[in-house]
Amino acid sequence: MGYDKEVDGIGVIVLASVTALGGGTLRDILLDEPIFWIDQVYYLYSTYIAILLTILSIRHVSRLSQNYLLFFDAVGLGLFNIIGIEKSLINETGMVVAITMGVTTGVFGGLIRDVICKEIPLVMRGELYATACIAGGLVYAALLYAGAPYAWCILGALFTTVFLRLGAIHWGWQPKLYRKKNPG
Amino acid sequence: MGYDKEVDGIGVIVLASVTALGGGTLRDILLDEPIFWIDQVYYLYSTYIAILLTILSIRHVSRLSQNYLLFFDAVGLGLFNIIGIEKSLINETGMVVAITMGVTTGVFGGLIRDVICKEIPLVMRGELYATACIAGGLVYAALLYAGAPYAWCILGALFTTVFLRLGAIHWGWQPKLYRKKNPG
Amino acid sequence: MGYDKEVDGIGVIVLASVTALGGGTLRDILLDEPIFWIDQVYYLYSTYIAILLTILSIRHVSRLSQNYLLFFDAVGLGLFNIIGIEKSLINETGMVVAITMGVTTGVFGGLIRDVICKEIPLVMRGELYATACIAGGLVYAALLYAGAPYAWCILGALFTTVFLRLGAIHWGWQPKLYRKKNPG
Repeated sequence: MGYDKEVDGIGVIVLASVTALGGGTLRDILLDEPIFWIDQVYYLYSTYIAILLTILSIRHVSRLSQNYLLFFDAVGLGLFNIIGIEKSLINETGMVVAITMGVTTGVFGGLIRDVICKEIPLVMRGELYATACIAGGLVYAALLYAGAPYAWCILGALFTTVFLRLGAIHWGWQPKLYRKKNPG
Repeated sequence: MGYDKEVDGIGVIVLASVTALGGGTLRDILLDEPIFWIDQVYYLYSTYIAILLTILSIRHVSRLSQNYLLFFDAVGLGLFNIIGIEKSLINETGMVVAITMGVTTGVFGGLIRDVICKEIPLVMRGELYATACIAGGLVYAALLYAGAPYAWCILGALFTTVFLRLGAIHWGWQPKLYRKKNPG
Repeated sequence: MGYDKEVDGIGVIVLASVTALGGGTLRDILLDEPIFWIDQVYYLYSTYIAILLTILSIRHVSRLSQNYLLFFDAVGLGLFNIIGIEKSLINETGMVVAITMGVTTGVFGGLIRDVICKEIPLVMRGELYATACIAGGLVYAALLYAGAPYAWCILGALFTTVFLRLGAIHWGWQPKLYRKKNPG
């Protein structure tokens, strides 16, 4: 996160905090819930500790373990997505709002990070970030309406999101809804 | 919106949603109102439907109908502006806050879109985006204080904003409040 | 602020408003407080007046007085930091959240400005922006827990932030928490 960019150490911490907490923060603002890391402050502590551990260990991260990072990133995306959906449903929003909240929670932290780093945001470039969240949300909704047990809804949504995201990385899946004007 | 950029289909939907809903969302957050598209979910439905229709019809959009797009964009800006002003006044803010809220509602969606797409935001580049909103707000305030009928306030503000915005596009009007250091 | 960029006059006002009010606005949103410039509207008035005075006087600003600008910017950063910490503590958050709020208040306005202007944000590039806020917050916390008089906490935090920030500008101090991959 920002590792190759020309940022200083504290900048990395700010950037990593925004990435980790940004999506959930926006979700809580939109739902008018107390912000989760202010309400339950151990979220903030564990974020800072995780960031410091990452910075301390980063020179030992080899190419091999990058695959682990991508795997945990995909699992994190899936979990953030489900947390967003459920927190939204608890607030008695409809399912369309809930799926939107899932995407928001999963995607906006990384979107803000990419905007700050002046990258074209990942969510805009394909790689099935938002798509994987939406698909997971649709599976969650389908299983819920079909009367499936609660654990199935969670696991189905999680599996769908992680599978699509990892598939996008591994096999280069990419959605194409419109035709480009120029191939450039 | 993002059509020429290197974004995928779902990215276009995310981008279009943020553009359409972003300004009003920020307004509701600032006023501590329930977010309009969560509170009244048909706003969210119609946004998604409009985006899908746009994507499906976009290859049929010719140069001619771009003028219609710009016209509807200007009318949308004018309406967003008035909605922001009125929602603010209902919350018993003063007129200066209300005009600021009108600009926020009208402009921030597009500002966020341009930031995500790594464009210099339209509102920053002139073309009277924010200016048209402010002028509309001032006309609204003037008519209101002069005791004009309610419909006049609305129509006067709407006409002012749309006229300035279309004039900026058509005749290249641009505000100049300061002198540039370099002409480059 | 945006002076050398290709922005129009109203764009400068929008940009300056976001810079001046952005950090505190985000703080109030996160703490679920009324937004300070809506609740106490003279903040909004004085911001607009200050911006207009700045625009009117900007051609008279020489190289010499830029040092005054940087000094006042540093003092402003220190004050924003303390206001963020105190408003957070009044809302009965813990000290870690309060220091985070101080950084948010001090830094996010400028962060948003740099993102809109497509700069690598100052806070990311070093120059001890966030670091100075964090250090000021730690001094505040240390003095508070040591039972120092209230004024000492304020002055200690303010002095620390301003000193580090000005030192970073003058002597090029910069934090280095990790090693770069490429020197480029």
